[in-house]
Amino acid sequence: MKCTRCRKNQAEIELIRHNAAFCRDCFVDFFHLQVQKAIKQWKMFSKDDNILIAVSGGKDSLSLWNVLVELGYNVSALFIDLGIDGFSEKAFAKVEAFSNKIGSKLIVVDLKKEGIPIPKVIKSVRRHPCSVCGQIKRYYFNMVAIKNDFDVLVTGHNLDDEASRLFANVLHWKSEYLQDQAPLLPSENGLKKKAKPFFRVTEQEIAAYAFFKDIDYFVNECPLSKGAIFSFYKKELNRLECESHGIKIEFYQGFLKEIRPLLQNAKKDRNDKITFCERCGYPATKNGLCSVCNIKEKINLKK
Amino acid sequence: MKCTRCRKNQAEIELIRHNAAFCRDCFVDFFHLQVQKAIKQWKMFSKDDNILIAVSGGKDSLSLWNVLVELGYNVSALFIDLGIDGFSEKAFAKVEAFSNKIGSKLIVVDLKKEGIPIPKVIKSVRRHPCSVCGQIKRYYFNMVAIKNDFDVLVTGHNLDDEASRLFANVLHWKSEYLQDQAPLLPSENGLKKKAKPFFRVTEQEIAAYAFFKDIDYFVNECPLSKGAIFSFYKKELNRLECESHGIKIEFYQGFLKEIRPLLQNAKKDRNDKITFCERCGYPATKNGLCSVCNIKEKINLKK
Repeated sequence: MKCTRCRKNQAEIELIRHNAAFCRDCFVDFFHLQVQKAIKQWKMFSKDDNILIAVSGGKDSLSLWNVLVELGYNVSALFIDLGIDGFSEKAFAKVEAFSNKIGSKLIVVDLKKEGIPIPKVIKSVRRHPCSVCGQIKRYYFNMVAIKNDFDVLVTGHNLDDEASRLFANVLHWKSEYLQDQAPLLPSENGLKKKAKPFFRVTEQEIAAYAFFKDIDYFVNECPLSKGAIFSFYKKELNRLECESHGIKIEFYQGFLKEIRPLLQNAKKDRNDKITFCERCGYPATKNGLCSVCNIKEKINLKK
Repeated sequence: MKCTRCRKNQAEIELIRHNAAFCRDCFVDFFHLQVQKAIKQWKMFSKDDNILIAVSGGKDSLSLWNVLVELGYNVSALFIDLGIDGFSEKAFAKVEAFSNKIGSKLIVVDLKKEGIPIPKVIKSVRRHPCSVCGQIKRYYFNMVAIKNDFDVLVTGHNLDDEASRLFANVLHWKSEYLQDQAPLLPSENGLKKKAKPFFRVTEQEIAAYAFFKDIDYFVNECPLSKGAIFSFYKKELNRLECESHGIKIEFYQGFLKEIRPLLQNAKKDRNDKITFCERCGYPATKNGLCSVCNIKEKINLKK
C-alpha cells in the first residue's frame, strides 16, 4: 500500500481512525502536526515559555520530550526516582542516556533521600500503590516547577490515558474529577499550569513514533502496578474502538465540548476552601498538612 | 442457601448487586417494592390517574402491566400491531390472552389499517428498522393517550435499556438525547407525560418475576431488529457489571443526579421551535408535517 499523504513511498503504518496509511517520514510529520494542533488549540505554551516535562523513562514521556525539542520548545525534564529497587535505577538509566543524547537539562528528585521511597510508603498507606505514587509525583512535579520558576508542566498522557480516565469517571459520575479532566489545567489554587500535548494521539501511535525515531525507552511495567483498574477501562475502550473507529477521540473531545463547560459553570469556588500546608506551603486538605507531609508524618510515627 | 429476607425459605434467586438472595415470595415483594420506590421517588403517577401502558407482549411490558394491576393502579393497555407477518399476530395473541386474564382494557392500533405496516415503511425509509419503528410507536402511543385523555403513559423500559441507552449517548455525548433521558418526562411540547417504573430493575430480575408469576409472554425477537446497536452496548455494560457489581444503577442514577440537572439548566427553550403537524396536530419538525405524516406521504408517493 502506498502512503496516502505523499503517494510515493510504501506505507509503513495504517491509522484506521484517520482512514490513512503513512510512510515513515509522513507519519512523523503527521504526528508532530497532531501535537502542534493540541498545543495551539488549547494555547498550552509558546516558544518563550520555560517548560518542565515529567519523564518516567517510558515511551510516552521520552517521545513527548523528543517532539518538543524537535519543534524548538525550551524544555527541561524532571525524573522522580521512586526508590523501587530493580526498577527505578533501570528507568533512570534510560532517562539519563536520552537526556545526554537530546541535550536537555535533567532534574532528579530521589524519594529515598526525601524519606518516602514508594515501597516504604505503601506499607504505611492503605491505598492502591498507583494512587499514592501518583499523588507524590504530582507533589514534587509542582514543587520543582514552582521553586525553579517554570511556566508550565507537561506530561505524556495520551488519548488512551485521558479517554480511559474519563470513561472511569463517567461510569461513576465523579463530578469533582470530571471538572479537572482536560488537556490543559490553568494555574490555580497554588498549583502550576499543566498541559498534556499528547491528548490527540494514541498509545499505539506513540509506540510507532518511538520506533521510527529510534527512541530507547524503558519497557518494564512497574512491579507495584498490578491490579490497577485503569488497565481494565483501557481494554474496554479498545473493544469499543474496534467496534466503532474514532470513538475514543469523539468521546473525549465531545466531553470537553458539551459537558465540561457545564461542570465548569457549576463549579463551586474551591479557592475558598483551600488552605496551605504549614510545613511545605503546598495546598493542604486536612489538619494543616498537605497529603505528602501527611504521608511523611505517618512514616515518621512508625519509626 | 436460605432467603436473606425471611430467613425461613430456601432462596431461589441471588441478586449479587443487592448482596441478597430471596425465596419466591420475598423476591416478588422486593420487586414490587422496587417499582413502588421508582413511582414515588419520581412522582410518576397516583392511584387517581388513568394510566396507559404500552405493551408488546414481551416480558417487560406484561410484567409491568401485572405489577401495576396488583399494586392497584388504574391501567389500560395499548398494543400496536406492527403488521410484521408471522410475528405481530403471535405477539398480539399473548397480549390478548394476558388482557383477558388480568381484566384490563386493551386498545389496539393496527399499522396495516393506518397504511404504514413496518415492513412497508422500511422499504421507503433509509434508517434502521428499530429507529423508524420506535418513532411510529411513540407517535401512536401519544396520540391514543391524548385522544382518550389518559394522564400518563408508561413503558416497560428497564435498567438495562436505560443504562445502555445512556452509555451510547454518553460515548457520543449527544446532549439533546441526554437531556431527555430520565425515568419521567413531563408533559410538554404537545407530548404526554411519560414514565418508566421499571428503571430500577434489570432484565434478569424481570425475567425472574415473569417466571415466578407465571406470565405467559412472547419470547421471539423481532425479525427486523438484527444489527440493532443497543444490543452491543447492553453486552458491554453487562461486562462492566460483572467486573463491578452495581455499576449499571450507579451509572444511571449518578447521571440523573450529577449531570442531568446541568443539562436541564442549559437546555434552550425548545418550545420556541416547536410547530405542529398541519394534518394530525402532532409536534412537527419540518415542512409542516410530523415524522409519521412524512412517512405516510413518502409511502403514498411511491404508490
